[in-house]
Amino acid sequence: MNNIPATVADFEEYARRTMNPGAFGFYIGGADSEVTLRRNIEAYNNLLLRPKVMVDVEQVSIATSILGEKISSPICVAPTAYHALAHHDGEIATARACAAVGTCFCQSTNSNYTMEQVASSVPKEALRWFQIYVQEEQEITQKLVKDCEKAGFKALVVTLDRPRLGKRLHVLRSGFTLPKHLSRANFHGDEENDGSVSYYHGEMYPGMTWKDIKYLKSITKLPIVVKGIFREEDAELAIQYGVDAIIVSNHGGRQLDSCPATIEILPEIVAACKGTKVEVYMDGGIRTGTDVFKALAIGARCVFVGRPALWGLAYQGENGVKQVLNMLNYDFRLTMTLSGCSNVQEIDKSFIASAERYSFSHTLAKL
Amino acid sequence: MNNIPATVADFEEYARRTMNPGAFGFYIGGADSEVTLRRNIEAYNNLLLRPKVMVDVEQVSIATSILGEKISSPICVAPTAYHALAHHDGEIATARACAAVGTCFCQSTNSNYTMEQVASSVPKEALRWFQIYVQEEQEITQKLVKDCEKAGFKALVVTLDRPRLGKRLHVLRSGFTLPKHLSRANFHGDEENDGSVSYYHGEMYPGMTWKDIKYLKSITKLPIVVKGIFREEDAELAIQYGVDAIIVSNHGGRQLDSCPATIEILPEIVAACKGTKVEVYMDGGIRTGTDVFKALAIGARCVFVGRPALWGLAYQGENGVKQVLNMLNYDFRLTMTLSGCSNVQEIDKSFIASAERYSFSHTLAKL
Amino acid sequence: MNNIPATVADFEEYARRTMNPGAFGFYIGGADSEVTLRRNIEAYNNLLLRPKVMVDVEQVSIATSILGEKISSPICVAPTAYHALAHHDGEIATARACAAVGTCFCQSTNSNYTMEQVASSVPKEALRWFQIYVQEEQEITQKLVKDCEKAGFKALVVTLDRPRLGKRLHVLRSGFTLPKHLSRANFHGDEENDGSVSYYHGEMYPGMTWKDIKYLKSITKLPIVVKGIFREEDAELAIQYGVDAIIVSNHGGRQLDSCPATIEILPEIVAACKGTKVEVYMDGGIRTGTDVFKALAIGARCVFVGRPALWGLAYQGENGVKQVLNMLNYDFRLTMTLSGCSNVQEIDKSFIASAERYSFSHTLAKL
Amino acid sequence: MNNIPATVADFEEYARRTMNPGAFGFYIGGADSEVTLRRNIEAYNNLLLRPKVMVDVEQVSIATSILGEKISSPICVAPTAYHALAHHDGEIATARACAAVGTCFCQSTNSNYTMEQVASSVPKEALRWFQIYVQEEQEITQKLVKDCEKAGFKALVVTLDRPRLGKRLHVLRSGFTLPKHLSRANFHGDEENDGSVSYYHGEMYPGMTWKDIKYLKSITKLPIVVKGIFREEDAELAIQYGVDAIIVSNHGGRQLDSCPATIEILPEIVAACKGTKVEVYMDGGIRTGTDVFKALAIGARCVFVGRPALWGLAYQGENGVKQVLNMLNYDFRLTMTLSGCSNVQEIDKSFIASAERYSFSHTLAKL
Ligand SMILES: Cc1cc2nc3c(=O)[nH]c(=O)nc-3n(C[C@H](O)[C@H](O)[C@H](O)COP(=O)(O)O)c2cc1C
Ligand SMILES: Cc1cc2nc3c(=O)[nH]c(=O)nc-3n(C[C@H](O)[C@H](O)[C@H](O)COP(=O)(O)O)c2cc1C
Ligand SMILES: Cc1cc2nc3c(=O)[nH]c(=O)nc-3n(C[C@H](O)[C@H](O)[C@H](O)COP(=O)(O)O)c2cc1C
Ligand SMILES: Cc1cc2nc3c(=O)[nH]c(=O)nc-3n(C[C@H](O)[C@H](O)[C@H](O)COP(=O)(O)O)c2cc1C
Repeated sequence: MNNIPATVADFEEYARRTMNPGAFGFYIGGADSEVTLRRNIEAYNNLLLRPKVMVDVEQVSIATSILGEKISSPICVAPTAYHALAHHDGEIATARACAAVGTCFCQSTNSNYTMEQVASSVPKEALRWFQIYVQEEQEITQKLVKDCEKAGFKALVVTLDRPRLGKRLHVLRSGFTLPKHLSRANFHGDEENDGSVSYYHGEMYPGMTWKDIKYLKSITKLPIVVKGIFREEDAELAIQYGVDAIIVSNHGGRQLDSCPATIEILPEIVAACKGTKVEVYMDGGIRTGTDVFKALAIGARCVFVGRPALWGLAYQGENGVKQVLNMLNYDFRLTMTLSGCSNVQEIDKSFIASAERYSFSHTLAKL
Repeated sequence: MNNIPATVADFEEYARRTMNPGAFGFYIGGADSEVTLRRNIEAYNNLLLRPKVMVDVEQVSIATSILGEKISSPICVAPTAYHALAHHDGEIATARACAAVGTCFCQSTNSNYTMEQVASSVPKEALRWFQIYVQEEQEITQKLVKDCEKAGFKALVVTLDRPRLGKRLHVLRSGFTLPKHLSRANFHGDEENDGSVSYYHGEMYPGMTWKDIKYLKSITKLPIVVKGIFREEDAELAIQYGVDAIIVSNHGGRQLDSCPATIEILPEIVAACKGTKVEVYMDGGIRTGTDVFKALAIGARCVFVGRPALWGLAYQGENGVKQVLNMLNYDFRLTMTLSGCSNVQEIDKSFIASAERYSFSHTLAKL
Repeated sequence: MNNIPATVADFEEYARRTMNPGAFGFYIGGADSEVTLRRNIEAYNNLLLRPKVMVDVEQVSIATSILGEKISSPICVAPTAYHALAHHDGEIATARACAAVGTCFCQSTNSNYTMEQVASSVPKEALRWFQIYVQEEQEITQKLVKDCEKAGFKALVVTLDRPRLGKRLHVLRSGFTLPKHLSRANFHGDEENDGSVSYYHGEMYPGMTWKDIKYLKSITKLPIVVKGIFREEDAELAIQYGVDAIIVSNHGGRQLDSCPATIEILPEIVAACKGTKVEVYMDGGIRTGTDVFKALAIGARCVFVGRPALWGLAYQGENGVKQVLNMLNYDFRLTMTLSGCSNVQEIDKSFIASAERYSFSHTLAKL
Repeated sequence: MNNIPATVADFEEYARRTMNPGAFGFYIGGADSEVTLRRNIEAYNNLLLRPKVMVDVEQVSIATSILGEKISSPICVAPTAYHALAHHDGEIATARACAAVGTCFCQSTNSNYTMEQVASSVPKEALRWFQIYVQEEQEITQKLVKDCEKAGFKALVVTLDRPRLGKRLHVLRSGFTLPKHLSRANFHGDEENDGSVSYYHGEMYPGMTWKDIKYLKSITKLPIVVKGIFREEDAELAIQYGVDAIIVSNHGGRQLDSCPATIEILPEIVAACKGTKVEVYMDGGIRTGTDVFKALAIGARCVFVGRPALWGLAYQGENGVKQVLNMLNYDFRLTMTLSGCSNVQEIDKSFIASAERYSFSHTLAKL
């Protein structure tokens, strides 16, 4: 028996056993009954693969690009709060791991290290995006955006699905708050951020509407990526308001419970963006190479992982995140190989089918 | 770890640990194999939410009205028997909690406190309805109705689904009967009600038909709400016989087992009442804010909760019921906020979809 | 806590704890993986009830008739082998209980008491049928039929689904055989039947075809009921060959595994017999009043119970069987009452609906 | 209680208790989350049988032929690696058992005994096929083919679904490698095969395409059977490239996870081969007689079993494999008997139906 983690679940199990239970609960939990959280993961099982054989897969490339920037793999790291709960090096470790692996790191507004600290820890060319909660006071938003540009972030990821914090039972039950020695580093002027601030802070202002996107576009040239779109009508509005990309997300099942899984929403959003230049990504429940493959087959250009990176961080800091990303990349490449795809452009909907398509009521009719 | 209940299940768990097991079994149980009881709760999971983002949800109002009376929230309290099993203050405590929260309390015929006792414990303006089992002897029915009017109840809720008592295994097995010190308070003249009466009493008479509704309307001006309609044909008859509202209910799974969940029946009844003035409500399995939201999205004007109020009562009497109602209101408001609705009129079917609509066989076809 | 059995499962549990394990295994087991056995029971859950309210159900009658003979309830007792394994009085006890309750007892070929012994233990007018395995040697078959007529049995139930014995793991594993002191009483001339005969005997001959039905009809005036029809094509042949009734059965899941449940087959057979005089009955998995109601709503004229009667027998002999039958009759009458049917003729397909009919994809479309 | 194994699960259980855990894990495991592995087995439950009664089944024959060669039953043995892990006699024992039973043994490239050793252990007329992983170096492939012909193998089974090894967690976790005393016997010249070689070896070369089939056909007259076809497009290519038969397989769930079960794929491939001379077989999850029957009803000419033969081998070597095959043959014959088929030609799609066909939404519509 060796103990090297071989799946995301192995990393998670390690975190469960070693992290502070309150912090672990904060990471792993979802909203309410966690119906959406579970669905995010289980829905992949209703989508089946249709491998092609006898394709030359001696060389398989998983490289791709997002918003014109090259990444070594379509597996990026989603914005998640407070990495220092998992490892002292926090977001710096995560950013370094992404840089080493060659993929995009999206920093959360609610990070324990500042944008500048993160920026100065990685090579200049390492692709970094910044996730922003738009504030009611335009000056605060504007300052965040300017800091962001200065620190070399390449896109603004605007989270839309958190006008109020979801009801997360893990945290309500444990009474977890951010430990005194940690703070929301990007807000050091803010007196509330003395280290004892509860995790309830740092959301967008609930009066936010599409006008705020207009405003953002008026103050920056950075591409705008909206995160949390959940229906085609909103995708159409997003296109209309000139966003550059959409992340299909339900905040890892942490906001509104009883929603579909993100992989179930993806087709609707991909369809709505067809024929436009808007790129579509997704996050939520990505745990294996086949999950990534399915998302790309539906039409996502890349995926983001939230918790898996946190488990890597809890395991061995920068090195742990690298292991998680390398493992997922390995698994994704293997999926491509066994499916008969030698580069990501070849992955299309012909490689997937709904479980229903294989129901006997459907297939026996062919005989 | 704090122990403040955060979900209806937490209150239920408290009741399970502290109540007399026979009484708890009487409260929680359903008929036969409890297929319908479980279905009432689980069916909500087959209906998914489609949140809208970028809506101004700074101010969210959950207030509404039923039969022209304002209520602070569409979550009302269903008629359930024998509240004194949960707390000494019985129906008085429940009615007070409803008054404090500003919602409608529906008193059961089989209450441990009389209508007058309940009426005199709450402010005059507090909305109260009375649930009635029509009796074969018209004088008894008439007396109940007159008492009801005198005590200021604003509507008669006529239960239709209990011509005979359902077979409830919990009670059969525990041999539970109403303790000697409690009685069916509204029937003090009745010699059987000396405190030892088993819970088998107090049903409608099995020969009841629509003519009895006619009779009721002939003796009172109170609005008539029928409870327990289960198919469109009966909804049409109810409309024809001039009822004012319908509560879609299966008596909390306590009568006929192997029925659909009430949330599954609701669309059929809403459709049947379209274009009429008859209001449609529902009860059964409401445990979270998303459950309420789904019922309203289908077309219910309000919902009633049965057991959740009883668990609150067992927890801390009046204060416990208030906690349960406040918690549900909080959760429902949060659901509205995260779904992008700022008042209940905005909640419509565009915010829900069947799980099947998100099946890949359906969604992949869009690509 | 009282211990009076309140469900079939309670009787079964009693039998499990008190019977010889080998004999209990022989009774309860099905073939192979018992997929069909489980399905027989679970399939009822996919059929839902649509109760009607405001029907006068003061008087509810469950009486009916089969092949022109009155029975007090549509719940009859199926032919099952070796009742003396459950109780010393064996088939005599079961027959008496049926007579007392007023329903039909169908005696198995493989009984521990002879036809004559059973016949002489019950009032002459008590309705009894005899289940026969047709033998290759016409003389044996003919003798059985003549004995049958002489003993006053009113119909021949010809079992079709046992050309070879199914593979029953319970029995293979326990090595169960009929105890020495018991025998296949109707075959006393047969030297193999010295009490040590294994349960493998007593099947129909595997070369049997529809010609054998012709032969049976040529030697007796008794009505012919075929048991084990499983597809419409065979129902049509049965009609053509002049049978009087069909029992839809899969031998309680003891023969071919991986078949549909009998309640799933029933509609196909009812449809095939429409417009003919052939009556359709069914057995398999009937455990509650709602099960019976569903079968009648589809079009069965009556149902048969196999194991439930055996559990009653194991509980308290004749008295136990009576309790089981009375309980099922009570439950069935209650189902009728709560569904709004005052006699069995009123039960039709308008009272049932598939679970799919209540799926939200179907019902939301009505809004 | 007797302990003679009565199901494949009984043999598996014996192997689990007695084999080296690493070797057992290597045998039983699938790729990744083993979704496909489980699906391979469970999918059979969604296909139901429609038995016919009153058919003369006194004599039932299960004999058939593949590629013109007679076999005593349509249940053959799939190529699996390293039989010596289960029993010292390894492939020799398995081959002998197949010969004794009269069915086809397909030897894996990765066997512990050479082709010649196997060939010389069985009667000349015993049907043997050889499974080959095509190598990049044509000489190696050519030598394998020539050895094969010389040793009297009657067909080449070319495995297509292993361009790279699947990710099998059992093996990753146990660190299992082939024990030093065992080797890939057919490659004795190869220095890596000194007994310590890990199981990672012995796959096809990942650059393989349909041209390699052309090449194979150019160097041998043996019929070509391709194993691992998974979609109709590939079946059409296989036909076009002149293969003689196709085995629908997903490598026992050991390669690409999240694929449909093989029984779910079978109809698509059978339909694609209709009207051609290409025979279709399948493997994956065959554990009972009804599984075999279903595969044949869809249109497979025979099935192959992988793990069941290995469990027999672990149980009692040659004798154990014989027991497994005899048991499966017995069960399959019984399924035919109870379904009303007296020879395998009679088995067609009229004997099966999807579970959906028996859903009440479908069947009630007939009433
Ligand atoms: C602990 C945690 C914190 C998160 N914090 C943020 C955040 O600050 N901003 C944000 O837009 N999303 C946040 N998310 C949501 C993630 O960006 C992402 O949508 C989600 O984690 C994806 O699901 P997965 O964890 O299943 O991969 C957070 C998620 C987790 C688990
Ligand atoms: C303990 C208990 C007693 C009840 N008593 C009555 C009653 O007296 N009259 C009535 O119309 N409904 C009665 N009901 C049914 C409720 O009005 C309501 O339909 C049901 O409780 C709603 O389901 P829920 O408990 O899942 O919220 C009772 C329900 C329970 C649980
Ligand atoms: C222990 C046992 C013995 C049976 N013996 C016979 C029999 O001798 N002849 C026959 O036609 N059916 C026999 N059956 C099948 C029953 O007639 C009937 O089809 C089945 O029990 C109905 O299913 P249920 O047990 O779920 O009610 C037997 C069933 C059981 C459980
Ligand atoms: C332990 C093991 C080793 C296998 N080795 C090979 C192999 O060397 N070549 C091959 O083509 N298939 C191999 N297979 C796949 C089998 O040929 C077959 O597809 C599979 O076992 C069928 O599924 P079943 O085990 O559920 O019957 C192997 C399968 C197992 C379980």
